[in-house]
This record gives sequence, structure tokens and C-alpha cells, in this order.
Amino acid sequence: MSGWEIVERGFARERLAANESVFAVGNGYVGVRGAPEEGTPAHQPGVVLNGFHETWPISYPEDAYGLARTGQTIVNATDGSVIRLFVDGEPLDLDSSRVASFERVLDMRAGVVARTVEFETAHGRRVEVRSRRLASLADRRLVAIDYEVVALDGDARVTLSSELVTHAPDQGGGDDPRRHKGFAEKVLVPRESSAQGDRALLRLATRDSGLELAVGMAHRVDADAVATAEGDGAGVVVEARLAAGEWLRLSKFVAYDWGERSRPEIVEATLDRALELGYDAIEAEHGNVVAGFWARSDVEIEGAADVQRAVRFNLFQLMQATARAEGLGVPAKGVTGHGYEGHYFWDTEIYVVPFLAHTTPQWARQLLEFRTSMLPAARVRAREVGHSGALFPWRTIDGREASAWYAAGTAQYHINADVAHALHQYNRVTGDLGFLLDQGAEVLVETARFWMELGFFDGDGRFRINAVTGPDEYSTVVDNNAYTNVMARQNLEIAIRITEWLRAADRHALAALGVTDAEIDGWRVAAEMMHVPRNEQLGIVLQDEHFLTRKRWDFAATPAENYPLLLHYHPLELYRHQVIKQTDVVLAMYLAGEHFTLDEKRRTFDYYDPLTTGDSTLSAAIQSVIASEIGYADDALRYFTDALMVDLDDSHGNTADGIHVASAGGTWLALVAGFAGLRDSDGDVSFQPRLPADWDRLRFRLQVRGQLIEVDMTHAGTEYTLLEGPGLPIRHDGEELRLAPRELPRAA
Amino acid sequence: MSGWEIVERGFARERLAANESVFAVGNGYVGVRGAPEEGTPAHQPGVVLNGFHETWPISYPEDAYGLARTGQTIVNATDGSVIRLFVDGEPLDLDSSRVASFERVLDMRAGVVARTVEFETAHGRRVEVRSRRLASLADRRLVAIDYEVVALDGDARVTLSSELVTHAPDQGGGDDPRRHKGFAEKVLVPRESSAQGDRALLRLATRDSGLELAVGMAHRVDADAVATAEGDGAGVVVEARLAAGEWLRLSKFVAYDWGERSRPEIVEATLDRALELGYDAIEAEHGNVVAGFWARSDVEIEGAADVQRAVRFNLFQLMQATARAEGLGVPAKGVTGHGYEGHYFWDTEIYVVPFLAHTTPQWARQLLEFRTSMLPAARVRAREVGHSGALFPWRTIDGREASAWYAAGTAQYHINADVAHALHQYNRVTGDLGFLLDQGAEVLVETARFWMELGFFDGDGRFRINAVTGPDEYSTVVDNNAYTNVMARQNLEIAIRITEWLRAADRHALAALGVTDAEIDGWRVAAEMMHVPRNEQLGIVLQDEHFLTRKRWDFAATPAENYPLLLHYHPLELYRHQVIKQTDVVLAMYLAGEHFTLDEKRRTFDYYDPLTTGDSTLSAAIQSVIASEIGYADDALRYFTDALMVDLDDSHGNTADGIHVASAGGTWLALVAGFAGLRDSDGDVSFQPRLPADWDRLRFRLQVRGQLIEVDMTHAGTEYTLLEGPGLPIRHDGEELRLAPRELPRAA
Repeated sequence: MSGWEIVERGFARERLAANESVFAVGNGYVGVRGAPEEGTPAHQPGVVLNGFHETWPISYPEDAYGLARTGQTIVNATDGSVIRLFVDGEPLDLDSSRVASFERVLDMRAGVVARTVEFETAHGRRVEVRSRRLASLADRRLVAIDYEVVALDGDARVTLSSELVTHAPDQGGGDDPRRHKGFAEKVLVPRESSAQGDRALLRLATRDSGLELAVGMAHRVDADAVATAEGDGAGVVVEARLAAGEWLRLSKFVAYDWGERSRPEIVEATLDRALELGYDAIEAEHGNVVAGFWARSDVEIEGAADVQRAVRFNLFQLMQATARAEGLGVPAKGVTGHGYEGHYFWDTEIYVVPFLAHTTPQWARQLLEFRTSMLPAARVRAREVGHSGALFPWRTIDGREASAWYAAGTAQYHINADVAHALHQYNRVTGDLGFLLDQGAEVLVETARFWMELGFFDGDGRFRINAVTGPDEYSTVVDNNAYTNVMARQNLEIAIRITEWLRAADRHALAALGVTDAEIDGWRVAAEMMHVPRNEQLGIVLQDEHFLTRKRWDFAATPAENYPLLLHYHPLELYRHQVIKQTDVVLAMYLAGEHFTLDEKRRTFDYYDPLTTGDSTLSAAIQSVIASEIGYADDALRYFTDALMVDLDDSHGNTADGIHVASAGGTWLALVAGFAGLRDSDGDVSFQPRLPADWDRLRFRLQVRGQLIEVDMTHAGTEYTLLEGPGLPIRHDGEELRLAPRELPRAA
Repeated sequence: MSGWEIVERGFARERLAANESVFAVGNGYVGVRGAPEEGTPAHQPGVVLNGFHETWPISYPEDAYGLARTGQTIVNATDGSVIRLFVDGEPLDLDSSRVASFERVLDMRAGVVARTVEFETAHGRRVEVRSRRLASLADRRLVAIDYEVVALDGDARVTLSSELVTHAPDQGGGDDPRRHKGFAEKVLVPRESSAQGDRALLRLATRDSGLELAVGMAHRVDADAVATAEGDGAGVVVEARLAAGEWLRLSKFVAYDWGERSRPEIVEATLDRALELGYDAIEAEHGNVVAGFWARSDVEIEGAADVQRAVRFNLFQLMQATARAEGLGVPAKGVTGHGYEGHYFWDTEIYVVPFLAHTTPQWARQLLEFRTSMLPAARVRAREVGHSGALFPWRTIDGREASAWYAAGTAQYHINADVAHALHQYNRVTGDLGFLLDQGAEVLVETARFWMELGFFDGDGRFRINAVTGPDEYSTVVDNNAYTNVMARQNLEIAIRITEWLRAADRHALAALGVTDAEIDGWRVAAEMMHVPRNEQLGIVLQDEHFLTRKRWDFAATPAENYPLLLHYHPLELYRHQVIKQTDVVLAMYLAGEHFTLDEKRRTFDYYDPLTTGDSTLSAAIQSVIASEIGYADDALRYFTDALMVDLDDSHGNTADGIHVASAGGTWLALVAGFAGLRDSDGDVSFQPRLPADWDRLRFRLQVRGQLIEVDMTHAGTEYTLLEGPGLPIRHDGEELRLAPRELPRAA
């Protein structure tokens, strides 16, 4: 097992549900769940199309003004992955068939899931089934599957039924508040279906959201194949009689397009091109893009093979979630599952953008462009909650707030500052000032305006922000949440800076934003006077002003099966205790570390860490980052491992709903900001390497303002190499260094 | 217009909806909305059966552990008030018919609504229609209607159709969060229908709650009448041809019984007895009960006729809401409408019981018995929110929490203390110790236990209660709400005292409750160390610990049409401001006045009063009580008038949904605890009379420990007369007095 493969050897029935996510292939636009081609057994098979959603009126049993009105739920899109297999009329079903051998491999270097199954019929006929599948990074609408049946002992009658299947809605959710209850009927209404030769095309529409889907399939196969299509399904049946050693190979190409109007002609063109290329060429062009990703993004670890593989798995998931998301956001589960209803959260800005900004800046930019495109809706939302400026929704697909629980939704106003932080970080890391001035400035100004209305100056002149929820959802609607206030201050400071730049660069744009000197002065005073609550006696930053007045949670009396606590305790019971779902102050100490001394960080970490349940997967990675910084090597490694293995171990028990993309991004942060100690929040790049004792090497590449550096940590020391670019100042353990270009060997 | 009548002279189309509540008749068990007998025009016609409800699973768009699961909504019960009238085939409809005269009178002394209409047909035929209706206080299952048509100018063909109508559900509610969205289909399913002679009987059942209703009607009429019944409806048609001056009189008797099994035989027996008595005798026996109520409960005001009438209206509503509620609670709207889904709140204990304890103690006791009967469900609820002891539901019919908004529902834990307060007050006012020991003790102990787990001792030894909501719903989930903590302390103190009494009276009972000396010691320490937040500088009690750290609401920038604020601002926007829906600290200063100095009361009132919107009708009366106490006569009268006129003026715009029973009870408090200054919280009865300058006299009677006193305030002074009983100490303006029995004239 190389460091590039996730392998399922022998069909792991008990991990079937989680493995549908682990073995999903996706490109940020389309994802195919890792259900078997044969259709069964499956947990929640289907296709995830980023952003393709249904809407529904949110009905509150007790309503209030300004609550979110429109639910948005990603649709389980028509499934093109189905190729049913019958040998001598007997279907292959991993549950009930006799399977002599089974191996499934997620080949992360190729970006392909490959499976080999030896199937023996009840009458003893044996065939080997080999399949490969991918969601193309070269052509984002294209899913390709190669399916091959080899007769091992001859005279097998093989039938393949390649299908487009629109699954009935999942009624699931149960009592888990993190899952939507599901739709009562099929969401997609057939509009048009057609079949010609071995090709079929469907057009379907959602009932309420006004979106359309076009999906088509085409095939390459050396046998007769005639497609039929009706309603929301289509099929092609292929038959062959194989002598021993003969095989039947079916290459299936599926293309998707969705929008307010779907474009069947683009689907057709995608299929035409795929047929012309054939599966192998498609895999090759896809593989080239994947290889490019790894060249920019791989993190190498020596001395811990399992860790190496798992790290790559997390990076691979970041690629799958973002690569071709152009014009769309990053759902909490990427395109590997329908969990969290396919919504976009702050995860993107805080957990995903840092990795992208340093490895594939263009992908970071496309995400930030998407966020800024939501500004009009954010302005509307600000009005609904009583303020001018803009308020980005806590969770959304179409730009409108979709959170139906204001206490841990709308009250998380910090998302505004998270967006501002990411815009700024992207700019400082990439040097892409044009984007910031052209598209970011308006967001920065409007979010700054929102903070000025949300908070106020108290009698002592301090700027207070009351009744907000920080990242930790086990305290809600609190006063002066340190995270929120620290990040709001950063938001104001960034807004001040951008208006200064605009004043120099584009006075016209500044005027268009209506920003006056008096307004900027107001931001400045608010930022200076921002109230960040601390406790002198303990020497710590307070998660919120009144955190210490709560009773400490009795962890000793909490049985293991009561985690996550949110599934076993009334919200009020959590809210009245010192108990933490996910890092809050500790995250602020990473994102705005310059405002805290090292001692304060250590004391603060010491105080909160025992109270932190890690019930959210966004927590462990950040705990690892700060543990590294304050010299807690064991904690750093332990929390890193927690984040690393969330999905491979299914340690939170809900990987079945999709991969935890934020945790994947956090894993990279724990490596690069944690073990390597990267800080870049203001464009200065500094490192403080602390290689885990058990590892031999940690090596990765970073892009900084168009230059490319390699960081190579061993126990002998850390080497920084400038691979591309004219030269770059960095800091290593506080010492200023300048990386110069390598001297190229002169031409002879 | 006497001081006993509410008169509608000329059909007030624009007040039709509100008048259905104002002219409703009820007895605490059954209420009939004030829609015309003829069925139309009507807003929400129907019958309210206290407690007869449907249940439904509460579905949260975003769920959490321990939220209320079962919605409970009072059913619009089968309407027995319909008697349609046709003259020469033309229906009487107040909207479209030619109505020469119209007068409707709520005769509060008789307890009857009487109406006289002169109806002229399109062909000029004139009849006078006289009707009277009542919900009997003598026989709680009985509604009686007397309907008479007099031909004014002869040869009129008169047809009456007396009906039982099960109305289709109201789809209303709209955006108003205070109203349930309604059911999609009829709630009542027919089980059985029968008709015999002029009598019909229906049995119907709810779909989900497992309740049955039996309703029957019978008639007295001098004409042929044959009933038919089918499904959920029944009818009797009566025809007569009248010469000038002749009349047709129909007496209609309707009887209701509901329960897990309805009892048609009781309905039949009720009808039998009604037929035997006839309408006039039924009205007479009902009138006797009403007269008894007035003898005990009237409050006489001289010098302000409108006030006198309006005061009686409020007292009358208290009677209608409670008199025959045996075994049931008091819905927020009594039995005059279906608002607030027919739920029981803390209103009963804090706003209604004081009046009843002092005027009809038996009615107070039946309400408290009902509350104590909910103890098993309250124990279950305590477990659901994480504690032992008992937690009464914020709103309920069947004992289970029905509030789907925890922030202004379950978090209002103070209801536990409100129940304890009422039990104690009832005991001290009536001297009914047996009830307290037999039924109250367990409630007091279990609620005390709940407080001990809800709060905790902080580092300074203070007992803190965090994350609760007080009566004011414009601040929610706050720390150390003064009202809650003051009342929780009272709860603990009462529990301590009852266990002391039990130790003396019934050690066995004490043992059965499992109360140990150590537990009582714990209550004592918590009560002593209870944290009631104050601000030294301002010299005020804080509504909650952090109230002053919020920004003051900008009332100057709030247009009049934005009230009530809850319909125009996001909850978070309200929560982060100093703005008050209803008295909170100010109420605590009334209910536990001994813990505050007069100066403190004045300063506290001064601080909060400008912040109080009065968006809740529970507010004004209490503001009046404290304004009286601190010598703010103008404020006292103004707030009294606000409370007094809530329904007669429909000043909150929702009287259509039913009468505001709590405000009616508050009106009595403003008179007796406000203007007369009655305080009785610990059994000592004291007065501090402050007669409004514009009034000549305020006179009322009070029962205190079985004795009856009359208080007669004029500007010349206040006379206290002991009407019944052996003698009673009271305090007048701080001076101790002893009321002695009047000397009876000796027999000659």
C-alpha cells in the first residue's frame, strides 16, 4: 500500500455508508458517491451537484420577525454511476452474491477510484469485474466510468444495464439536528427525455427553486446498445457472450449541466468530446491536472507512512471540493455527500482558503469571487436584522440566510469578519491587489458598516458587541465574544487600510462607496476601543465577557456515550455551563495572533482546553496549531491526528453524510501553521518549525506573492528553498532571512 | 346605560371581530363566541371548550435535544349557537339585510347577552328578533339561547334553522408569531350522529389527541320541529306563519361533554333537565350564581361611570374564565377565543389567583389543584432539561411543554416559582393549610429541588442562576434575572417553611418526600446567598446582571407603527438592547415587595419605566400597582386605564382572538393592590389607600382567612368594615388596626 492509496480490501459491509463518502470522486462541480456501479447495496447513493438545490418555505412552530424564510437543500441529482451487471441472468450484488475477492482503491495520485471484484454465480461461473471512475478535473461537467467484465472460465452470458437513475428522496435525518428531514416526494420533475443509439438525455427541473438539470450519458462498447429514456430515468442494455479469457468493456460518459436554464447542447458536446477521446485519454488529461495539484500541494512526511497517506487523503479532498467550483462555494461536505444540506459556511474562508491561497491561488480567488457576488443578498439580510451594511448568511446556497436556528446561525455575525479576513489574507499572500480593490473593497466597507451598527460605545468609551454567538455553539447569544470582537476589529482595520489604498489608487471608487473621512475615523476609534474581555487574575482572554460566571461542566459525570453533547442535553443546559463545542478564543489566537502574548496564549489554551469537547470537527486542527505554538508537542500531535482521521476513521460517526472539508483544511493548517509554524496574516511570512519527534521529515511547498518556496523540515534543521521567484524575505524562529533564487548551472 | 351593561347600539361592522370576544358568554368550561345566531357575518365563530384540544408533532426546521415535541391546540368545538332566520325565504344577515335597528347588550349583572334586531325584508315585511344567550354557571355543560321573532306588520312566513355546525379550521395566523398556523383539515372526525324529535346528538373525536366530544341540542318551541343529524352537523327546521303581533319563540339548549371518552348520557341528561326547566328558569338559576359572584367580587367606583362599567367588564371576564373550570386551567383568553392556542400560562397563578383567593377561594383552589395535578408531567420535563425535581411547562394544555421557542418558553423557569408563590399566597389568604400540606407540599419541594440544580454557588459563595428568561421577553436567556432569583428565593423559603410545618404536622409525609435536613440546609443557604443584582451607583435593582451593559433602545427613532416591536424587529435586535416588553423587576417589587426599600422601588421604576413598551398586556396593570405605591398617581391612573381598556378599546388589536384574562386580573390588582394598597403576601393584610383624585369612591370586599371585610375609600378617608368573621388585624398606612364584628341590634 503506497502513500498514495486508500484501499478497501475485501468488501467492508460495516463501513459501506462511510465509504460512500471516502470513495467518492468529485471535482468541486460534480461528485459521485462511492456506491457500487451495480446500484446495491447502498446507503445514500447518488450524485452531488454543487449548488443544485431545492428551496422550501421554512415553517416555524413559533415564528418571529426576520427569521430565515427560505430553506435550501441540495438535490440528490440524477445518478449516472449505475451499471448493473448480470452474469447468466444473475445480478452482482455485493451483499448477496458470492464474491471471491474484492479490492477498491482510491488512487489519489491518479484521481481515480478503481475496483476489482471476482464474482462467482450460483452455478459457479466466475468473472472478474474491473471498474474505474473519475469526475474530470479537465472537464468539470464530465464523469467517466470504465467497466470491464472478464470471463474467467468461459461461456458467460454477460448483461450490462447502464442507467441514469433519479433516486427517491432520502427520508432520513432522524433525530439528528444536523440533518435535514428530507423531502416527501421526488424533487426533480421530468421535463424532457430522449434517447438515440446508446445515448440518452434527460432534462429535469426542481419544483420550487426554479433550477433545471440536464444530464446525459453516452457509451463506448463493442456490442449492440440501444438506449431508452422516459421520465426521470434512462437505460442502455448491452449483452455479450464471453468465452474464457474474453472480456466486455463498457466506457460510460455522463455529463451534467444545471442552472436557471440547463443547456442540453453543452451536455451533448461534452459527451461528443468524451466519446472521441475515450476513457483512457480522459483519465490521462484528468491525471495531468491532478498531478499539477500534487506538484503544488503535496505535503511529504517521512517516518510515518499511515500519516503520509492520511494527509494526502485530506489534501485530495480539498482538491475534490474546490478545483472546479468556479462560480460556486464549497459545501461543508464538498461534493462527497448531501450533509448539512449542501450549504456554504464560514468554513470556506477560515479553513479552506488558506491552503488554496498558498498552493493554487486561482482556486482561492474563485471562492472569494463567489462570496463577494453574494453581497447584494448580504445587504438585504443586514436590513432584515435591523442594520445597514451587509451581513453574510450563516449558511446558504443562493445567498439568502438558510439557518433556522438564529442562536447558532444568524447570531454568528462573525462570518462577516471571517470573509474580510480571507479577502485580506488572500491579498497579502498572493499580492493580488486588483481583486481586493475591484471586488473586495465594497465587501470590506459594507461589513465594517455593519459592525458599527451592531456594536456601540459604552459609558467607558469601549466598543461593545452584545448578543452574538462565536464559533463555539455551546455558548450562544453572549456579550463581547472575544473571537467576534477581535475579528471585527481586524475587519475594521482592513476596511481602513483598503480605503487608504483606494484613496491613492482610485478616488472615484472610494467616492462611489460613499465612504467619508468621518466614517473612517469612526472605524478607527471603534477598532482602537474594541472591548476584548480578559481576566487579569487568570491572565487569560475570556471567550465572552461572562464566560467565567458560568458553572463548569461536570465532565467526570458525563458518560462517553453522551457525546456529542448536543444530541443528549437541552441547549439551555449547555449554554449555562463552561463547556465548549469547538475552539473559539483559541482560534482567534491563531487568526490574530499578534494581539496576544505567548504566555497569554498558553494560559488561555490551558484554561479552555479541558472544557473543549471537540464535538465539532472544526476544533481539533486549531487546537493542534496553537498547541504547536505554545510548545505542547504531545497535544499538537494528538489533535492533529484527531483532525487527520475524522473521515478515515469515521470518528464522528457521520462521514456517511460526506467528507468534513473544513477538517481537511484544518489538517493542512495543523501541518503548515502548526508544525511548521507558518504565520502570514499580514503578508510577512514567518516559520517556527517543530517537527514531531516520531517523524523524520516534513516537506511542503508554498506560494507567496507569486514566488514558490519549499520548506524541508528534518531533525537536523529546516531548509528553505526558493524554487521560483526573484527573492523573498522570511522569518525563521524570529530571525530574518532572505531567500534568493537558486543559481542555475550556466550553459556550457 | 347602567354601570352593568356593555352596549353595542347599531351593528358595529368594524368591531365585528373584537366583539365576538367582548360579547362571548362563558363559564370557564364552555364559551360561545359572540357571533350572531344567524351564522353570518362572522370572523371566527364557534365554541371554546376549555382544554379540548388536538395534538400534533412539532416539527422544527432545525432541531435540538429536549425541545418540546407535542403541539397542543384548542379545537374550535362544534358550534351550537347557530339559529338561522328566514323571513318569507329571505335570510337575516347583518351585513346584507336591511336592519332598521340593532342593539346588543352584555348584561353583566344577569350574565347574559341580549340582542334586539329589527329586520325588514326586501319586500318590506318587518320583524323584531330578540335573542338572549348564556353559558350556565349553574350547569357547566349547558348553553342556552332564547330566540324570538315577532311579526311587526303581519303575515310573515318565518323559518328557523337551529343547527350544530362544525366549522372548518381557521387557516389564519398569518405572520403573527402569537398565533398558531392552524390545521389543514377539520380536526373533529364524526363518530356517531343521531336525531330524535327536535333533538340531535353528535359524537366526534380528534384525530391525534385521543379526545372525544359529545354535543347535543334540544328545543322548546310551539311548532313542529324535526331534527336531522349527519356526520359532524345537525339541524332542526321550524316554520311558522305569523300575523301582526304574533311571535315565534324557540328556546335552544346545547350541552357539551368531552374527555378521553365523552359521555352522551350526560349530555342527554343535561338536555332533559334544561327542557324541563325552560329558558327562563335556566336564566334565573344562572343569574343567582352570577349575583353571588357580584356580591363577593364587585368593585364599586363612584364619580367615573365609564370606569365603573369597564371595571365590571374585567371582573366579569374573570368569572367567565374561571367559575366552572373545575379540573381545568385558565386559558390565556379564557373561553372567549382560541388565541394562544387555548394554553395555560403563569398568568393563572400571578394574575388570576390573587383575585379569586380574595373573592371566591374555592375557584382559586380548583385552579391550584389543577396545577398540582400536573406534577408528574413536570417531573418528566425536568429530566428532559437535565435536572431532577419538577419543571412546569411554560405553556400547555395536557401538562407537557408546548412552547416551541425555548428562549421565551422553557427558559422562563420562573413559572416554577410563580406556582409556589400562588400556593403560598392562597394558603396565607385563605388559611387553607390542609390543601397546602396535602397537595402543595410536593410541588414546593420538587420545585425547590429544581432550583438547586438550575443554579450553583459561585466562587464568592453567591447562588447564581444563569441562562434564564424572566417575564420580559425582550431579553432572553440572561444571567441572574432579578425576578427569577427573587422568586426562586421565595420558592426555597416557602419550601423550607412547609417542610417545617410538615415536620410538626405529618412526619410521615415529610419522609415520603425524601427531604433530609441536609437538603433543607442547602435550600436555606441558597436562599440566603441568592444573587439579586443591583447597581450601587444608580441605586436600582438590575433586571438581569448585564442589563446595563446593553445599548438603550432608540425610542425617538421608533415610529408608532413599529409597535409591538416583536412584529418589526429581529429577536436578536431586541435582545441586545435595553428595551422591555413587560414589567420584570417591577413585578418582583410587587410580589416580593418586602425585599426592596421604597426609595429603591422608586428609582428602579424610574429607570425601567421609560424602557417599557407595554407590548405585552401583562405589563400596564403591574406598572400601575407600583406607581401607586411610590406615589406616582398620574402614572398609576394612566396604566390602570391602559389595562382596563385593553379589550373594550381593542387597544392591542387582537381582542378578536379572545379576551386578555391576565390583564383583567391585573385590573383588579391595580385597583386593590394599587389604589387600595393591599399587601397580603405573608398573610398580614395591609392597606395604603390612594384614591384617584377624579374618583369619589372606591369600595370592594375581600375575604381573608374566612372573614369578609369591606373597604370603602373616599376622599374623606377609608372605612374598613368586618362583614363576617370574629375579628381581624389589619394595617392601614402602616398603623395596626383590629377589625371587630359589627354589633348586631339586640332582639327587642
